[in-house]
Amino acid sequence: MKQNGGASKRTKAAAPPRIVILEPAPLIDGGRYAPKRTVGEEVAVKATIFADGHDVLKAVAKVKAPTSRKWVEYPLSHIDREIAGDTYAGTFPVEALGRHQWTIEAWIDAFASWREELRRKVDFGQTDLAGELSEGVLLLQDAQERAKGGDRKVVKAALDTLRDPDIDESLKHQAALEPELAAAIDRHPDRSQCATLDAPLTLDADRERARFGAWYELFPRSWGGFQGTAEAVPQIAALGFDVLYLTPIHPIGITNRKGPNNALTAREGDPGSPWAIGLKGVGGHEAVHPELGTLEDFAALVATTKDHGMEIAIDFAIQCSADHPWLTEHPEWFHHRPDGSLKYAENPPKKYQDIYNVNFQCEDWKGLWNALRDLILLWVDRGVKVFRVDNPHTKSFAFWEWAIAEVRAKHPDTVFLAEAFTRRAVMRTLAKLGFNQSYTYFTWQYSRWELERYVEELAYETADYYRPNFFANTPDILTEQLQHGGRAMFEARLVLAATLSPTYGIYSGYEWVEHTAVKPGSEEYLDSEKYEVKERTLDGAPLNGLIRLLNEARRSHPALRHLSNITFLNTENDGLIAYLKQTGDDAILVVVCLDPQWAQEGSVHVPDHLGLPWDFQVQDLLDGSRYDWHVGPNYVRLAPGDRQAHLFRVVRG
Amino acid sequence: MKQNGGASKRTKAAAPPRIVILEPAPLIDGGRYAPKRTVGEEVAVKATIFADGHDVLKAVAKVKAPTSRKWVEYPLSHIDREIAGDTYAGTFPVEALGRHQWTIEAWIDAFASWREELRRKVDFGQTDLAGELSEGVLLLQDAQERAKGGDRKVVKAALDTLRDPDIDESLKHQAALEPELAAAIDRHPDRSQCATLDAPLTLDADRERARFGAWYELFPRSWGGFQGTAEAVPQIAALGFDVLYLTPIHPIGITNRKGPNNALTAREGDPGSPWAIGLKGVGGHEAVHPELGTLEDFAALVATTKDHGMEIAIDFAIQCSADHPWLTEHPEWFHHRPDGSLKYAENPPKKYQDIYNVNFQCEDWKGLWNALRDLILLWVDRGVKVFRVDNPHTKSFAFWEWAIAEVRAKHPDTVFLAEAFTRRAVMRTLAKLGFNQSYTYFTWQYSRWELERYVEELAYETADYYRPNFFANTPDILTEQLQHGGRAMFEARLVLAATLSPTYGIYSGYEWVEHTAVKPGSEEYLDSEKYEVKERTLDGAPLNGLIRLLNEARRSHPALRHLSNITFLNTENDGLIAYLKQTGDDAILVVVCLDPQWAQEGSVHVPDHLGLPWDFQVQDLLDGSRYDWHVGPNYVRLAPGDRQAHLFRVVRG
Repeated sequence: MKQNGGASKRTKAAAPPRIVILEPAPLIDGGRYAPKRTVGEEVAVKATIFADGHDVLKAVAKVKAPTSRKWVEYPLSHIDREIAGDTYAGTFPVEALGRHQWTIEAWIDAFASWREELRRKVDFGQTDLAGELSEGVLLLQDAQERAKGGDRKVVKAALDTLRDPDIDESLKHQAALEPELAAAIDRHPDRSQCATLDAPLTLDADRERARFGAWYELFPRSWGGFQGTAEAVPQIAALGFDVLYLTPIHPIGITNRKGPNNALTAREGDPGSPWAIGLKGVGGHEAVHPELGTLEDFAALVATTKDHGMEIAIDFAIQCSADHPWLTEHPEWFHHRPDGSLKYAENPPKKYQDIYNVNFQCEDWKGLWNALRDLILLWVDRGVKVFRVDNPHTKSFAFWEWAIAEVRAKHPDTVFLAEAFTRRAVMRTLAKLGFNQSYTYFTWQYSRWELERYVEELAYETADYYRPNFFANTPDILTEQLQHGGRAMFEARLVLAATLSPTYGIYSGYEWVEHTAVKPGSEEYLDSEKYEVKERTLDGAPLNGLIRLLNEARRSHPALRHLSNITFLNTENDGLIAYLKQTGDDAILVVVCLDPQWAQEGSVHVPDHLGLPWDFQVQDLLDGSRYDWHVGPNYVRLAPGDRQAHLFRVVRG
Repeated sequence: MKQNGGASKRTKAAAPPRIVILEPAPLIDGGRYAPKRTVGEEVAVKATIFADGHDVLKAVAKVKAPTSRKWVEYPLSHIDREIAGDTYAGTFPVEALGRHQWTIEAWIDAFASWREELRRKVDFGQTDLAGELSEGVLLLQDAQERAKGGDRKVVKAALDTLRDPDIDESLKHQAALEPELAAAIDRHPDRSQCATLDAPLTLDADRERARFGAWYELFPRSWGGFQGTAEAVPQIAALGFDVLYLTPIHPIGITNRKGPNNALTAREGDPGSPWAIGLKGVGGHEAVHPELGTLEDFAALVATTKDHGMEIAIDFAIQCSADHPWLTEHPEWFHHRPDGSLKYAENPPKKYQDIYNVNFQCEDWKGLWNALRDLILLWVDRGVKVFRVDNPHTKSFAFWEWAIAEVRAKHPDTVFLAEAFTRRAVMRTLAKLGFNQSYTYFTWQYSRWELERYVEELAYETADYYRPNFFANTPDILTEQLQHGGRAMFEARLVLAATLSPTYGIYSGYEWVEHTAVKPGSEEYLDSEKYEVKERTLDGAPLNGLIRLLNEARRSHPALRHLSNITFLNTENDGLIAYLKQTGDDAILVVVCLDPQWAQEGSVHVPDHLGLPWDFQVQDLLDGSRYDWHVGPNYVRLAPGDRQAHLFRVVRG
């Protein structure tokens, strides 16, 4: 194209749009990361939209599902408040799994603007509106060309009226202002004066399990391997768990194997830590430990959990034992000393001589990254869709964003749980990069004030991307509270975990109130299962009943499946924490005694703005007892040993 | 390039960086708009920066001034707090006018990381560190190649020591850990493992007048035109004003000219509103009204204000009178009816038959936009660098962003003040788009609570882009407070405007306590100067003394030149508002009685965290009186008629 042609083309280009679209929501870091939702939810969309002057604006949210080529539109409404006078809001449903694209489009509705001006003039009694009507004729001509079927007829009739020199002007005004005409034109809008966001935004849709689930963690070797674990599945399922999380199931290295209580040298027959993965001749992350069973046994376990309405989660721990096949097959993927020898993991002065970390920046990083992704895909093929990722914050952040996107592009129903206990910014970044749920600081929030502050942070501040999984204990975390609080404390923390967070978990032993630490000041278990084989059973565990009731309540009450629906209530006593969760008509009121020793009494204040009836009944889902409650203060007494918590449903009607 | 070549090239590309840089500040809407600063200020930079693992990170801010091709670097320090453990912060100075680019760069410091690990191992008493030393040799070899001069010698000496087989290992450790070695290597960093922001950010640097200044607004026709106004300049300058703002100085249309008190028809000799711009045969926005004088007279006025340390601001009001030359020369730039006739402005049922608006979206929008920009450039050439823009929110937002950028690219010392009184989102957007300062809701904030909330919003929430100009009155705004509060209220509002906001202004008549509205419920002046010629003088105006003292204090106290340095203080009485402004050692304490009728007493609480001495003296800059104050409550009594406000400087030493 010639210079002239180009210049003339530039002159002919339309002026930039008059409409400004600001602050679209949900939005994370200016659109850099995708907010998270689950299929079946409605996404609340909001934006600030305005133009110069007084014209009527129309706006829609446009959404493209991952498997679709079509943009589907959902109307946004003008929210008319004094300060937020430029806010438009609406919702769109999430129906498909995976990464959606969405944007906002707004345009000046020339006919509606003209109609509104005409209405005001007619209302004011202005009569000489011939000029206005001549504009209306042009707008109706355009509308007639856009409209179809019955709408077109409606427009044509109005146009004929406006054009007819024999018809009285006031009748023309009436015809132009007919709501039916406005509705007909609304269905065929002229969007030539249209603005949109600079670039589409994203949204990740997961299945509900990414947000809601009860986890049970076990070492399969303590349950008789895959077969023994499969035999325990009916019992675990009967307690109401959704996810059965297995600590690493791969071959364990022998070199520098750790002995009981993390001893530097193992004795003959010590099983080693399952996180020291890989044994020459047996296999690495792709293999299963022969003592647990065969791949067929594993497949049978997967099938059994599925039959009982549960699913398996495995541990994705990238580190390698000194005996991992990759160390010889792919030495180029590991850190080396200048003399060429491999470099074990260390955090000086601590040395982890049984563990080697891969080098995500190595020259063949592409080969390494692909191999790691393929490992995940291999286990997905074997029926695993939930991965608990070990210490992701000590691996390349860019790798996680890439790998999770790669896997979810093929299998958008996979769920990744980030096991990072580190600084807030790092944990939040992992969640933004794609982890569907995350471990939290929950275990270390002891007081009412700490719990309220932390849950409000999760529920309001980071809810768009950070989904908490409240484990009450883990093989690494036996808090001082649990060590010294007895059964009452185990009950309190269990109720808190299961009712504060939609996703929670326990590591086996919790149901038995196991509480002995290896030494004072340590959160490690005495004779930790990490280095020894136990004989585990659920038969007769003291907390089984409470666990079952909690999980039953979680499944039957939608209010317990969400996080941001929480409101903390005043109790007049810091020994009692109380909160209300509401979803639709479902309302759950929880009161927990945080004191494991002494009875606590107080008044739970139900404020009037929460929409509960002035007087209502509550029924305790833990023992069936009923009480009359009302808006205002409600007396509560909870005594450790007798009753540690109320889990009330609000009885309607 | 062949497919294979491309593929092999991709494999060789380095892995994505391990470093994550998040939440850089200052940042507006993810970088879409430029934060504002003035020359001479230090920009506080912050970001969250981390990598996987325990390596030592280094970070810098990089800045490119508008006229420079060079990126200049400023170090960022790691701020070591528990929660903000990943925050890096620093500052860079603003030395040039105009749009700067800046970014953040962070890298893994391999030598510092190695040194820190070695230090911990040596401290712990580990001895077999031959492997570590062999790594150190490699790092020092690299460092030696990067280093120059004396630093190179330092590195070479250490390298020789580490390589010497006859030297004891502990001496090698000592040599490797020498602070001088670390410092030498620090000056020649290896940035191969480096990350930076996805795209550079921007920052607009203005001159101080964009942030700080006292404005006096007048209608030059009431002061004897340009010559008469020039004669008043010494007096206005003596009151301490910085900017002399002239209402529009262009020819005024005759068709549909408004009469006194906005009458629909003008009488013979009525001068018309200066905002109805343009008269056939005389000129439009490029011309001056002949009754004000000639362009030479205007040039003389510009020179006189400059001689007195002030400058002229003119009004940029894009609307055209019915007689504007553009209506015939460029009818294509205006809105038309279908019959081809021009369309006057209206907001039904209101009609503005004396005003025609240009159509920013017209086919020849480029021609129109260029013509408007050229008008601004024309007045810049005539010595005007400050433009008060009339109703920018009723014009194209895209136009303002473009036009201000065009003008400031050539003249970065121009200042644009947005006269928009509309919804928050719209006013904020205009500021983001480039207006250097903005009118505010100040006049309608009456109570202590309203004033505190509003100023805190401006000082903390929008300070990065929204610079307030607190006009105490305007030709359109005579608030009910001023109509009924008498001289005491005029004093209170004057002190508030001049000490709350770095930029403030009054419209002439304020100094005379002019307070009569055209009718109850209206904010219009009776016999408004907008439609009539007055005879104005400053001689003997009752508020002259207070104005002079306020402007003197503003000039001599840096604390009054800033906004975000404000802290509101408790007074135990809502009739008294008190605030402290601190900049460096300069501290100003203001107490204003908001009641125009009754004496108010209370205690001004000085909290201990503000850094003031336990006991200190304050001196009232309005009357020289001194008081002993201290951290804690300080009794204050202010009586209308006697004393409406204290303007204390804190006496040091």
